[in-house]
Amino acid sequence: VTYQVAGPVAGPIVGMVGGGQLARMTAPAAVPLGIRFRVLAEAPDSSAAQVAAEVEVGDHRDPEAVARFAKGCDVVTFDHEHVPTELLHRLEDAGVAVRPGPAALVHAQDKRVMRERLTAAGLPCPRWRPVGSVADVVAFAGEVGWPVVLKSTRGGYDGKGVWTVGEERAVERVLGAAGGGLLVEERVEFTRELAVLVARSPCGQAAVYPVVETVQVDGICREVVAPAPGIAEDHALAAQQAALRVAGELGVTGVMAVEMFDTADGVLVNELAMRPHNSGHWTIDGAVTSQFEQHLRAVVDLPLGATTPHAPYAVMVNVLGGDYPDLYPAFRHCMARDPGLRIHVYGKQVRRGRKVGHVTVLGGDLDRLRERARHAAGYLRGEVTE
Amino acid sequence: VTYQVAGPVAGPIVGMVGGGQLARMTAPAAVPLGIRFRVLAEAPDSSAAQVAAEVEVGDHRDPEAVARFAKGCDVVTFDHEHVPTELLHRLEDAGVAVRPGPAALVHAQDKRVMRERLTAAGLPCPRWRPVGSVADVVAFAGEVGWPVVLKSTRGGYDGKGVWTVGEERAVERVLGAAGGGLLVEERVEFTRELAVLVARSPCGQAAVYPVVETVQVDGICREVVAPAPGIAEDHALAAQQAALRVAGELGVTGVMAVEMFDTADGVLVNELAMRPHNSGHWTIDGAVTSQFEQHLRAVVDLPLGATTPHAPYAVMVNVLGGDYPDLYPAFRHCMARDPGLRIHVYGKQVRRGRKVGHVTVLGGDLDRLRERARHAAGYLRGEVTE
Repeated sequence: VTYQVAGPVAGPIVGMVGGGQLARMTAPAAVPLGIRFRVLAEAPDSSAAQVAAEVEVGDHRDPEAVARFAKGCDVVTFDHEHVPTELLHRLEDAGVAVRPGPAALVHAQDKRVMRERLTAAGLPCPRWRPVGSVADVVAFAGEVGWPVVLKSTRGGYDGKGVWTVGEERAVERVLGAAGGGLLVEERVEFTRELAVLVARSPCGQAAVYPVVETVQVDGICREVVAPAPGIAEDHALAAQQAALRVAGELGVTGVMAVEMFDTADGVLVNELAMRPHNSGHWTIDGAVTSQFEQHLRAVVDLPLGATTPHAPYAVMVNVLGGDYPDLYPAFRHCMARDPGLRIHVYGKQVRRGRKVGHVTVLGGDLDRLRERARHAAGYLRGEVTE
Repeated sequence: VTYQVAGPVAGPIVGMVGGGQLARMTAPAAVPLGIRFRVLAEAPDSSAAQVAAEVEVGDHRDPEAVARFAKGCDVVTFDHEHVPTELLHRLEDAGVAVRPGPAALVHAQDKRVMRERLTAAGLPCPRWRPVGSVADVVAFAGEVGWPVVLKSTRGGYDGKGVWTVGEERAVERVLGAAGGGLLVEERVEFTRELAVLVARSPCGQAAVYPVVETVQVDGICREVVAPAPGIAEDHALAAQQAALRVAGELGVTGVMAVEMFDTADGVLVNELAMRPHNSGHWTIDGAVTSQFEQHLRAVVDLPLGATTPHAPYAVMVNVLGGDYPDLYPAFRHCMARDPGLRIHVYGKQVRRGRKVGHVTVLGGDLDRLRERARHAAGYLRGEVTE
């Protein structure tokens, strides 16, 4: 990659496809590094388009729009995993620096490809099988026991495209409704969910953040505690090593989150996300290098930054859309009540259950941190009124 | 102030007059708060204009350009102190929320007004006197001893407009060359220079950061250590209380830096800056609430954030223009050598001696922190080559 020089800034131009909150939170991270950050946004008022200095509006599924956008960038990266893999292969063939590249990204786009690859590499996964019929699912459930989990191989996120089914009739309903490929997995008896955030550069340098505990409700991340409370050092190391191995095996560039089930027998890989991730939002306020800066450093092949946390614990709680159409008026109460509270809003229309922001607190007393973060998120949402 | 609603973001629009590095570093702080940030920049490629989503180009001395800019904003604030006081009074009379207001800001614009006010309030200052002739200066020096310090009452910054003079002939040369009002001050025998950053809201809430030590070379800030090493608690408290009193007495809104001389008899107020300040850059990486976020919170009258530092010490060293026309290529070495290093570049044309960026490191071992930060700043500048 050779960098275009425009005016006094001579850093690379990084283009992010997708104008959601991840692109919005990446924009500030580019500023101190002198990296020019450009967004291909769905609409002129999308979350990132409100704050980025350079915005193009276009559809991430439109090959011409994406190619035109890529032409102005030194590196292309992503706010989401929805750009068609073939389109990215064509970009890469045309000489565009696509990071992560489509050969890696496909593992975050297609759950079957991911499961095949991780299984082949000997990485710990739930038992799984591709399925094409009700009979396939019933046979699998006969081996591992009901209930089982059906997943669309492509297009799922935040709990969409995932169905826990307890008997044959429920399988029929899902197969009748779901289009595209499906796979089935055992329902893992986990003690908690963990996530490991890693970053990897084109030159092969990798960095890993502390293992965090995530709390999911209806498939949506609600709360993250960094580091995972009470995790044994060897257990944390094993989880970090698994995530680093995934990054290396798949040739990831940029930040990747590996979501895991914690079980009595060790960790199992659940999902991969090859971009900054909800489980890493705490790093903005709580670590020396935020996941957004780390992603930028990785995709432009700068040396990675320290992942050291600032405090013994960070607790992040998502703000989901609730009763208030606008979050700003609630700031006064939350900020006055808790001067250490870090509030992040995404500039998105508030819809019930939609992620519209998050809050983070840092400190040593975990119970008190949870209480502070939950209170603030609840107040911003309108669920708590004092 | 009632806030304009534009699309899904309903926070206030803050307009900053001036497109320098302070506005550049304020832009990222507005993003998580959902505050819309707009810049009145000198040129389309000025430091802040490269990164802000909303930029107007115009001259801060042009009443029409400033009034037009202000019309689109809920609150107007500043990257520098160079907007004529009269112009700001007219804006305020027209109903614009100018923060800090001209009645406060004049004390950062006019050193004579500042000295008169602080002296009347009983705040500790160096001995001083307004002067109109060589004879005035010689008479003052007869009382306090040579050398004395001559200062332009308006327009000085970064060592400009300040002259240390040791005898009558030197006074003649300065008075011959300097236009506008002048004052003379004793040259203070200080042990070191300190700075205290405070924030104050329209509603009167105030917050204060730890007292820092600043190292100035040729009138330009080179290095800041937070907190000031070895400072006694009562001494630090006295300095903080002096700064808070200045903020209250002058009715400041926003962030203000009070630069002080530390002497055997206590602190003396040297200069005031009513905006985010070089002595507070360490807060971006080193404190729960950065000075840039704090300034935004103060000018829109949101409750102020915690000023708690993340580490026992933060050391910030300015990167001055040196041998390299572009700082980015040196990143690789600096980042690889020190993953905990925080680099900030301002996107400004590199000119010898000009502030073009800064670096910050956090930790407990002050000698090591100084060494790391000085090395990185020297390497980015081109003075150090390993």
